[in-house]
Amino acid sequence: MTDPSPVDARTVPAIERLTCVIPAGGVGSRLWPLSRANAPKFLLDLTGSGDSLLRATWDRLTPIAPADRIMVVTGSAHRESVEAQLPELLVENLVTESEPKDSSAAIGLAAAILELRDPDAILGSFAADHVIRGNVLFERAIRTAVQAADQGHIATIGIHPSHPATGFGYIESGAARGDLAPFDVYDVTSFVEKPDEQTARDYVEHGGFLWNAGMFIARATVLLDQMALAEPDLVRSLREIAAAWGTDQAASVRERLWHGLPKIAIDYTVAEPAAAAGKMVCVAAHFEWDDVGDFASVANLLTRGRGSDLAVLGDGAQVLSDASSGIVVSESDRLVALVGVEDVVVVDTADVLLVTSKAHAQDVKNLVTRMRVTGGGHLL
Amino acid sequence: MTDPSPVDARTVPAIERLTCVIPAGGVGSRLWPLSRANAPKFLLDLTGSGDSLLRATWDRLTPIAPADRIMVVTGSAHRESVEAQLPELLVENLVTESEPKDSSAAIGLAAAILELRDPDAILGSFAADHVIRGNVLFERAIRTAVQAADQGHIATIGIHPSHPATGFGYIESGAARGDLAPFDVYDVTSFVEKPDEQTARDYVEHGGFLWNAGMFIARATVLLDQMALAEPDLVRSLREIAAAWGTDQAASVRERLWHGLPKIAIDYTVAEPAAAAGKMVCVAAHFEWDDVGDFASVANLLTRGRGSDLAVLGDGAQVLSDASSGIVVSESDRLVALVGVEDVVVVDTADVLLVTSKAHAQDVKNLVTRMRVTGGGHLL
Repeated sequence: MTDPSPVDARTVPAIERLTCVIPAGGVGSRLWPLSRANAPKFLLDLTGSGDSLLRATWDRLTPIAPADRIMVVTGSAHRESVEAQLPELLVENLVTESEPKDSSAAIGLAAAILELRDPDAILGSFAADHVIRGNVLFERAIRTAVQAADQGHIATIGIHPSHPATGFGYIESGAARGDLAPFDVYDVTSFVEKPDEQTARDYVEHGGFLWNAGMFIARATVLLDQMALAEPDLVRSLREIAAAWGTDQAASVRERLWHGLPKIAIDYTVAEPAAAAGKMVCVAAHFEWDDVGDFASVANLLTRGRGSDLAVLGDGAQVLSDASSGIVVSESDRLVALVGVEDVVVVDTADVLLVTSKAHAQDVKNLVTRMRVTGGGHLL
Repeated sequence: MTDPSPVDARTVPAIERLTCVIPAGGVGSRLWPLSRANAPKFLLDLTGSGDSLLRATWDRLTPIAPADRIMVVTGSAHRESVEAQLPELLVENLVTESEPKDSSAAIGLAAAILELRDPDAILGSFAADHVIRGNVLFERAIRTAVQAADQGHIATIGIHPSHPATGFGYIESGAARGDLAPFDVYDVTSFVEKPDEQTARDYVEHGGFLWNAGMFIARATVLLDQMALAEPDLVRSLREIAAAWGTDQAASVRERLWHGLPKIAIDYTVAEPAAAAGKMVCVAAHFEWDDVGDFASVANLLTRGRGSDLAVLGDGAQVLSDASSGIVVSESDRLVALVGVEDVVVVDTADVLLVTSKAHAQDVKNLVTRMRVTGGGHLL
């Protein structure tokens, strides 16, 4: 494990040593049948902006890091889709996985590649399929986090909760770290799982709890060394793959090692142990953030600030409704007529029609799981 | 008005003088988008039997009257569809209307044609778009009604209610008419409109109230003479059209007179005045009957006696659902997935998707009315 490097050793400013890593995995089963194996959530436009979530993520990062310092980690199957969305992405910054191995492997491999390019590289990891509004506030938070990362800390971003959400994890923040920044930086006391409603209300009233936006900013080497404490074999394999990356052996080394890697989220290999060890800080931020976990979230995103509360993703002229809530996702040119139904979720695609309610939007995942077992997998 | 002919004047048995008339009009707006202008309710299969309601009506009547004594009155636009459904229908028994003029004109014209063919003709009118189960009980009731009709009465059929339905009109029955049949025949005291729930419960408890199945059995001349008391001009026009029927002048006479006919239901020109005058009798019957007025009715029809309560009209293998109520009508080959929704109505057609609830099934008509005004008429 590398100790934090002293600031005065640096000649290149920290922000110029930042590479943004976008892990683009995860189908987003709760958004089926809009999301599919070949149309994962990060390739969807869930805001009606015309851009995929991946493209919006890229555009949010380019004011912070130039195109040659943005890296995408994705499944081999999605290579072409990602390249189509991000023509500016350098080929050496497109890292493909032969099979999904969760976020420790994906982000860890990016870190291993980056530390070989520059031992002082700083890595920022940003999900490909979240929605953020308020890019100036986002940029300010990331710049603050990069400063903390340069000091050897592992930084994350915590969002001031606007309501007692039960669908997000929370960060319990501790002492303010005025030594790292004049404001907004705190120790992380712990990460807590999605709370029940009463607990969420307590968190919001208490004020010391922030939504966990799942972002990590750290020196690549610090991140890997922290991960190695929990998963030494994983990190050894990742560094071996990274050493061969860009050479003739890249494919064969990855083939040999990747399949055996453990599937484990970076929350368990890095964030939680680092917090427990007092090495984690968070930057508290006020930008709007949503991980858009299900169609209820999509509906809430779309209706924000509009007079009518029925959300429509697609051609609104094709929807006839007396409803004042719920969401219609229209991918066909059929007329969708709603009569006397509230809080309904209607997803109209070419080969599948889903009808559920906002309250049951999470249960779509169960249906997808059931279809995997009982048939219908070709529709997933 | 003709007095009832004495029974002993007859040499041909009454049942052999019966012609069944099937008025096949009415789009059935509450069943949109399954029902359309060019696919009216009577052409639909709402029971999953494979037969249209019109065809099922025909098949129910042929044990009572042979094909050459079944007449259909329908709009000119539906002529070909009706002929395709009923290849046995004689061309002289297919009466077409140049525009819809409600049941007085439709049934009255049939009666006027029949009285010219045989002054002792008996007419039985049976809707083309109701569902009946228990054809033996149906046949027995009609044979009883024909006997009463032959005596000069206007007979109707009342269904013993199985539950306090609020969607049907009721017949208040009076004294038993043992002079007409040993049992099941009663005077009609009055016809009452669709009741509220408490009234419907009172009716069922009281026992003297029957569902009005909208059937009329009478001598053609008796029916027309009764109608003439309320609408003399209408009946004069109908008899003029009938006199030209089957001649070269048929089309021109109908063209000249039809457009000016009043649009009025036979309930108001015949049934209610005849009941008030003590000329109406009803045959109380126990067969199952439903006018299938909306998708909630279709759901109730389809789920009768089945383990699961989700009704499916179409290919059940295309429906994935955790619901134990409601109805899916599938006209496409798309998968329909329901998650956590109860009592929902989903109608999936090629160009329109309707989502409503059983409780709001009647409101579909309002949407159709709105579309007629605001656009979308091509989908009606």
